[in-house]
Amino acid sequence: MMAVVASAKGKILGESDTATRRDEGPDGVIGQIIEQITLAAKDAGISAKKLGAIGLGAPGAVDPRKGMVVRAPNLDWTNVLVGPRLSKHFGVPVSLGNDVQVAIQGEHAYGAAKGAERAVGIWIGTGIGGGIIIRGELERGFRGAAGEIGHICLDEAGPECPCGRRGCAEAFASRTSIERDVMAAIKSGRKSVVPQIMKERNKLRMTSSVIQRALAADDQVMKDVIARAQHSIGLLAGNLVNALDPEVIVLGGGIVERLGEDFVAPIRESARSRFLRPDPDGSIRIVPSLLGDHAGALGASFLARNAVR
Amino acid sequence: MMAVVASAKGKILGESDTATRRDEGPDGVIGQIIEQITLAAKDAGISAKKLGAIGLGAPGAVDPRKGMVVRAPNLDWTNVLVGPRLSKHFGVPVSLGNDVQVAIQGEHAYGAAKGAERAVGIWIGTGIGGGIIIRGELERGFRGAAGEIGHICLDEAGPECPCGRRGCAEAFASRTSIERDVMAAIKSGRKSVVPQIMKERNKLRMTSSVIQRALAADDQVMKDVIARAQHSIGLLAGNLVNALDPEVIVLGGGIVERLGEDFVAPIRESARSRFLRPDPDGSIRIVPSLLGDHAGALGASFLARNAVR
Repeated sequence: MMAVVASAKGKILGESDTATRRDEGPDGVIGQIIEQITLAAKDAGISAKKLGAIGLGAPGAVDPRKGMVVRAPNLDWTNVLVGPRLSKHFGVPVSLGNDVQVAIQGEHAYGAAKGAERAVGIWIGTGIGGGIIIRGELERGFRGAAGEIGHICLDEAGPECPCGRRGCAEAFASRTSIERDVMAAIKSGRKSVVPQIMKERNKLRMTSSVIQRALAADDQVMKDVIARAQHSIGLLAGNLVNALDPEVIVLGGGIVERLGEDFVAPIRESARSRFLRPDPDGSIRIVPSLLGDHAGALGASFLARNAVR
Repeated sequence: MMAVVASAKGKILGESDTATRRDEGPDGVIGQIIEQITLAAKDAGISAKKLGAIGLGAPGAVDPRKGMVVRAPNLDWTNVLVGPRLSKHFGVPVSLGNDVQVAIQGEHAYGAAKGAERAVGIWIGTGIGGGIIIRGELERGFRGAAGEIGHICLDEAGPECPCGRRGCAEAFASRTSIERDVMAAIKSGRKSVVPQIMKERNKLRMTSSVIQRALAADDQVMKDVIARAQHSIGLLAGNLVNALDPEVIVLGGGIVERLGEDFVAPIRESARSRFLRPDPDGSIRIVPSLLGDHAGALGASFLARNAVR
């Protein structure tokens, strides 16, 4: 988890981060959040009492009105009222979004989607999350669930998704899916440098850095799997352009941060091939995140500031 | 084409309709539009000079700012400036949307989506079109192209779509696709009453009335094909709920009008099975259009009134 103290212009005045201790349950994790906010304020040279508002991005489904995390599978949280808890501790209003909603909010306020009236964020990590800006504002949806684009189905007969259904975009192209496909290729007898890289670097999971190294080593298995993932993400992006006609699609998450334009270029091609309305001038931009790791925290700070303005 | 003169409350004061003579080209069709508007005014007992504004829904891609039909395949129109032509003739402002954008606008102003902050329309006809209401307003997108949900890809290996790509929702479940699948089943040797119904009723195309009669006659081919189409439309609706989290999805078009809730119920089931965020209380409604044939004309009139308000 990462906390920043930011100015109205998105300047980071202080920050702090730490590994989330999910084993400690909601109480423990909320304690960690309080600690990180306090440390970020200290880093900014101010007392936490001086904070004007707090924004939070949670890895899962939220109810923004209640300040409740409805369900966060990776934390194993169900119906946790984190907003009121933080609000009580710090004595300021707390805004809550999901982690990708706040990331695209950050990119819209300060990054790659700045100035766009309509933008879509596609964040590729353990899963695939999304966020939508319409008419200059984060679109949260009826229940606060807008932007779950990782669960747009690209093929009902596709691979199983962690959500229990088949063929969601996430099941094709998340980092978890890339790992599954690389491991399956190796198991089927194809040669790959990936196991060696993971061993050398003492990695249990196929992190973005492992993916980057395998590609740099011209590993054909990784190249094939990444090409398929890029194709699927492009298909998803094309679907979103046909549905929403945004000015810009921002791609983010660990792999995008590591690989940048090399990762994005084939996605752009795949997406453009699905545009119903031709875009000969390339007026619809498909670009990597500008804020990287800080997108979520900066977007959460923007939402918080906006709520008390 | 249909013209209505409507009150602020969506009451139809006068109307007129006729078959579009596409062979006469843009000039001829614009002449027909002028005639129908004039006849609808006459039917309302007023002079066309008394109209306050004109709204138009065009069957294709539009540029609302220019009042231009960018591309309407069924009319074979490219870059036709219909808005300025009508505006010059009648001396009032003209608002332009595509036919399904105005239909969902009509349902939102006066029909099945009334009062909803967020709604999506799925219109099933020759093709599949859509329209999106966000924060109480028709969402047109960056280029006026928002809502082309018929071209969300449900399976890249799926059937060919009139747009030239594969596996769009339209390629699975439009009336044209239903006709294609029924004919293919018959050609492969399955027995069906459809050819007989079409012959008796002197129909060259598999209209909604033919579909309705075949289902009433318990025709297994038609039942199978419709079930597949319903499943695909449900998949599309589920994708849209995951992306946009609307309060209501309105289904419209000829088949929906004919079959109503019988057609919608299996779509609802299929859609709900794809919701990432569970909706145990059924707070997200999936319902047939209330305005039927008049949805588009009423929505266009609403847009027109809104533009001059």
